[in-house]
Amino acid sequence: MILKKIPAPHPRVTLVGAGPGDPELITLKGIRALASADVVLYDALASHELLNYVPRQAQLIYVGKRVGQHAFSQDEINQQLVAYARRFGHVVRLKGGDPFVFGRGHEEIAFVTGHGITTEVVPGLTSAIAVPAMQGIPVTLRGLSESFWVLTGTTQAGELSADIALAAQSKATVVILMGTRKLAEIVAEFSFWGRAETPVAIIQNGTLPEERHVLGRVNDILARALEAQIDAPAIIVIGEVAASHAQFQAQVAHVHSAVNAFS
Amino acid sequence: MILKKIPAPHPRVTLVGAGPGDPELITLKGIRALASADVVLYDALASHELLNYVPRQAQLIYVGKRVGQHAFSQDEINQQLVAYARRFGHVVRLKGGDPFVFGRGHEEIAFVTGHGITTEVVPGLTSAIAVPAMQGIPVTLRGLSESFWVLTGTTQAGELSADIALAAQSKATVVILMGTRKLAEIVAEFSFWGRAETPVAIIQNGTLPEERHVLGRVNDILARALEAQIDAPAIIVIGEVAASHAQFQAQVAHVHSAVNAFS
Repeated sequence: MILKKIPAPHPRVTLVGAGPGDPELITLKGIRALASADVVLYDALASHELLNYVPRQAQLIYVGKRVGQHAFSQDEINQQLVAYARRFGHVVRLKGGDPFVFGRGHEEIAFVTGHGITTEVVPGLTSAIAVPAMQGIPVTLRGLSESFWVLTGTTQAGELSADIALAAQSKATVVILMGTRKLAEIVAEFSFWGRAETPVAIIQNGTLPEERHVLGRVNDILARALEAQIDAPAIIVIGEVAASHAQFQAQVAHVHSAVNAFS
Repeated sequence: MILKKIPAPHPRVTLVGAGPGDPELITLKGIRALASADVVLYDALASHELLNYVPRQAQLIYVGKRVGQHAFSQDEINQQLVAYARRFGHVVRLKGGDPFVFGRGHEEIAFVTGHGITTEVVPGLTSAIAVPAMQGIPVTLRGLSESFWVLTGTTQAGELSADIALAAQSKATVVILMGTRKLAEIVAEFSFWGRAETPVAIIQNGTLPEERHVLGRVNDILARALEAQIDAPAIIVIGEVAASHAQFQAQVAHVHSAVNAFS
């Protein structure tokens, strides 16, 4: 009897961006990577439909945060990528949004590459651009905004990024991710730089059926966000382009007259 | 004899981002839009493979620039979107990259909506993020860059954007589209603000087989770009993250020693 030799797996890791939420906003390249995966390591995803592309025999491993349970550290995830690739072959690391926009994708790729394993990157749509776009807000608009600046509300040190002050002085459309808990500080910074009247849009759960948004200006967005109970995950867009939203005139004008009625 | 009544088409326009070049970097939603199109209006695309998704009976209309021929004005394109939608039904407007990042997508959508026609937006991957990502350069990197600023080299007025000076003073990763012809001015601005040593990557034809790149620092990138004859379409990335490129140490160190050998 001749024993069939099991071929040694060719270890490789593909980092795939899942996009902003809507499962149809993943790329064809991302779908093809999932369809050829032996193992998929995934974070908390806006939609689990993407996992349907993964072959039945492949392993699905959740490495995101679990309520009341131990979450894997970045180092543990890195180690798992290497270990699974060596043991099983093609590992797809699936991350929400774009893995290179505040996604720590590069850290994972650098670690895996450092262990001599082939890597590939499949970018995803970042919510910073796609979420406003699908609400009718372009991050650039001819004659109104000729650049956009994407920041995180909370830096590694847990503080408001110093670049927010510089952003408030620029003509850029300012897009802030992970910023809803810092909204009061952000508003104060923009107000200080004379931007009280600048339009603002905050969009929660962008591109998903449960998408919600609030529109206003720097000087009233805090009250409106509190009233609407907008919370993370949300995108904050500050700039004249926010007034491009189809409901901006109606909603923001309405608030102004409501405020006037009580003043 | 009863004449068959031709049903009136339901006019609608879907604006689809084709992504940065690689035809697999379009979204599933974009493919589905193309597959249900009655008419596709497209610009100069990095890849014509995407047109294979369009049904055989649909009309393909090129509205980009032609060498030596009249190019359609923005107003003519707007008018065509409305006219074709009314006559044939579902018009897909296919644009390279992301139509809301310097893509004038919003102008087209606003025009069509203003004519009472239903519109939908399918964002595409912007080259500003995807092109550096696929070269191993993350626009953000924990501890090194906590924001990124995307600008155009040439503003509507044809001048260098005033925001470039502010960008040079920020800690943001600066990504400049359509900037290769303004590289000398960009370099001068960054040098003025003490950024002569900041790493720079310029990537031409990103994500395509003919992709080329040049790496350097603010103080030598101009010479390197001239030597390599890097030209449009290209993305300029200025920031510490550019040194993440796998060949940065080897190539940039090499240039430095070559320069020293002649000095």
